[in-house]
Amino acid sequence: MAVNLPAPDPSSLLSIPGVDLGVAAAGVKKPGRKDVLVMQIAPGAAVAGVFTRNRFCAAPVLLARKHLRNEVRALVVNTGNANAGTGADGLKRARQVCAALARELGCKSEQVLPFSTGVIMEPLPAERIIAALPEAKPCDWAVAAEAIMTTDTVPKAFSRKVKLGKGEASITGIAKGAGMIRPDMATMLGFIATDAGVARRDLAGILKRAADRSFNCITVDGDTSTNDSFILVATGKGPAASKKDLSVLEAAVTDVASRLAQAIVRDGEGATKFVTVRVERGRNPAECRRVAYAIAHSPLVKTAFFASDPNLGRILAAIGYAGVPLDTGKVDLYIDRVPVVKRGGRNPAYLESEALEAMRKPEFTVRAVLNGGKADATVWTCDLSYDYVKINAEYRS
Amino acid sequence: MAVNLPAPDPSSLLSIPGVDLGVAAAGVKKPGRKDVLVMQIAPGAAVAGVFTRNRFCAAPVLLARKHLRNEVRALVVNTGNANAGTGADGLKRARQVCAALARELGCKSEQVLPFSTGVIMEPLPAERIIAALPEAKPCDWAVAAEAIMTTDTVPKAFSRKVKLGKGEASITGIAKGAGMIRPDMATMLGFIATDAGVARRDLAGILKRAADRSFNCITVDGDTSTNDSFILVATGKGPAASKKDLSVLEAAVTDVASRLAQAIVRDGEGATKFVTVRVERGRNPAECRRVAYAIAHSPLVKTAFFASDPNLGRILAAIGYAGVPLDTGKVDLYIDRVPVVKRGGRNPAYLESEALEAMRKPEFTVRAVLNGGKADATVWTCDLSYDYVKINAEYRS
Repeated sequence: MAVNLPAPDPSSLLSIPGVDLGVAAAGVKKPGRKDVLVMQIAPGAAVAGVFTRNRFCAAPVLLARKHLRNEVRALVVNTGNANAGTGADGLKRARQVCAALARELGCKSEQVLPFSTGVIMEPLPAERIIAALPEAKPCDWAVAAEAIMTTDTVPKAFSRKVKLGKGEASITGIAKGAGMIRPDMATMLGFIATDAGVARRDLAGILKRAADRSFNCITVDGDTSTNDSFILVATGKGPAASKKDLSVLEAAVTDVASRLAQAIVRDGEGATKFVTVRVERGRNPAECRRVAYAIAHSPLVKTAFFASDPNLGRILAAIGYAGVPLDTGKVDLYIDRVPVVKRGGRNPAYLESEALEAMRKPEFTVRAVLNGGKADATVWTCDLSYDYVKINAEYRS
Repeated sequence: MAVNLPAPDPSSLLSIPGVDLGVAAAGVKKPGRKDVLVMQIAPGAAVAGVFTRNRFCAAPVLLARKHLRNEVRALVVNTGNANAGTGADGLKRARQVCAALARELGCKSEQVLPFSTGVIMEPLPAERIIAALPEAKPCDWAVAAEAIMTTDTVPKAFSRKVKLGKGEASITGIAKGAGMIRPDMATMLGFIATDAGVARRDLAGILKRAADRSFNCITVDGDTSTNDSFILVATGKGPAASKKDLSVLEAAVTDVASRLAQAIVRDGEGATKFVTVRVERGRNPAECRRVAYAIAHSPLVKTAFFASDPNLGRILAAIGYAGVPLDTGKVDLYIDRVPVVKRGGRNPAYLESEALEAMRKPEFTVRAVLNGGKADATVWTCDLSYDYVKINAEYRS
């Protein structure tokens, strides 16, 4: 079902010196499925993270945020259970998992970042995860991307190389997520690693800005998850990045993050369309984002996308209720290059057949030009189909 | 498909002296369908209105808001076309309809309030509506309620009597709406009339407060319409309301408005469940409403309602991202009387089978107790089903 999203070619994914991957099958939800990923990180690496702003954030998010203060030596991810809405007991279980992995690897419990994804408000079967840790088998990034999937239909992983002053660095990232996607800091789960050497402080800045231009620009259903986490690891096993290199590295990390973020939308639950919503010439970026999200969240707009139905007045309605000061008489609207609305009303030259042709494609752009300022914003989203309802009405059964 | 919503019994609907109803078939969208309603109002009546806050509000909304300053003598409603997103041309067409009806009735164009509902951004076929006006046939409230339906499956009309100091007054109301429902002032279209005599200023206060406790408490899909309008007419042909009577009258009007508002949710597009979301012990009513709407708008929560699936962690996630300061460790959650969450975590005594039994009913209550203050709020909503997608993916075809 995913829109123009082939599974990653394992041979295209670069290994990152200083990161060792392993997977295990703990039977968190279903027996036999690879559902635990361990990422061991060499000493001396810098690690940065951003996390959901959902106030009901999960126990592993609380712990990971805290453990980031230390030198991080490992990440452990389980699917099948989010360990969110689980109170003090959930924290205890997340701590048990960290402690078990720390014993295994010979580091401290506080050097392990835990991550969970899956059903909310169920007790985490920590004992099963702990029992599986010694069984973890070494694997590559393609297998790692598979191990963190839940309702995803396609694993998500991208690599690229970037030239720094002292040599070439590699970047590889994986992410998961298909529903409960409206990241407010980061996505459901995203991990990017590079062998470049970067100071922790610089890495945190790169991460924050990359998140704002990738994972923080997507939405499937407007539901901000309890478990959103985006982690960036720089092992320093490759070339050290000079001050001058940082912007090049940042652009490359942002590129990988954008591909991962867009992959999440392409594989959005039930998605049949990948839609770029671009709001231009608004008064400021925050207002442009608000308008873009109003369009991207409207169930009426999303069902019209699904039907390839140019019932585009629904987009005007969404712009109108976005809660942003607006001279409606100045608004223009385009589907790809088709000028639908001019100065707040139907463009007399508009031919519905042209909009229909654009919307029948699996990918198109909605461009709302507010003509009230110089700011703009882009959000990536998908349509709302029968299958979204099916997947979410049957998710646990 | 509507949830516990029988069609109104015509004999239960009280006629309102001073209001004469007529319907015509103008073929706005489909030939033969009754799609124009005229409400003639006797001289001397008081009329009040509240309208959508959508900035792309429709041409008829702009005109109705303006014409309310005059002594209103008639309302004219068409379905099949919203006359929204139509710019200056839309205003011209709405004015033409007002002028034609004014000629017919012998009043001024500025004494006519126009209302439209249907597809956005299509030119209003004013000439067809104007041609149909002289053909309008007198009708009762049951037929009037039918004439204003679009994707509604059941007409919505309620009456009640109320005892005032000088005698008994009648109240009858009709409303339409099933999708693009998240009123921000009023509903899609609601009209309530009484024969009580009420000063215009008092009537406006009654209307505003009744709207806040009825139409402003519902949501189907979170899409605030371009055409929301709620009108209250007091003809004065029955008993005059004394100052003392006003609160009694207000309670009765609010009762009729609540029934109409709930009927809209019961008949929400694709609805199979009617859900009351109650947020209690919050810091203030605005924050409670925000949390209630976050729950009521979440596609994940709504699909779980559809599936009768107690995947209730999704509700915690929605509470968490509502953007309201919150001590999650204090939050309790109930489905009807089933205590699901205690102090922010799964209640150890919670049995999923009990929540399942409650959610299998066509109506239930989600009660989130924030334990942070003394305020509360209630929102009525429905589930998100296959049929919602079907109806909205096929609406125009």
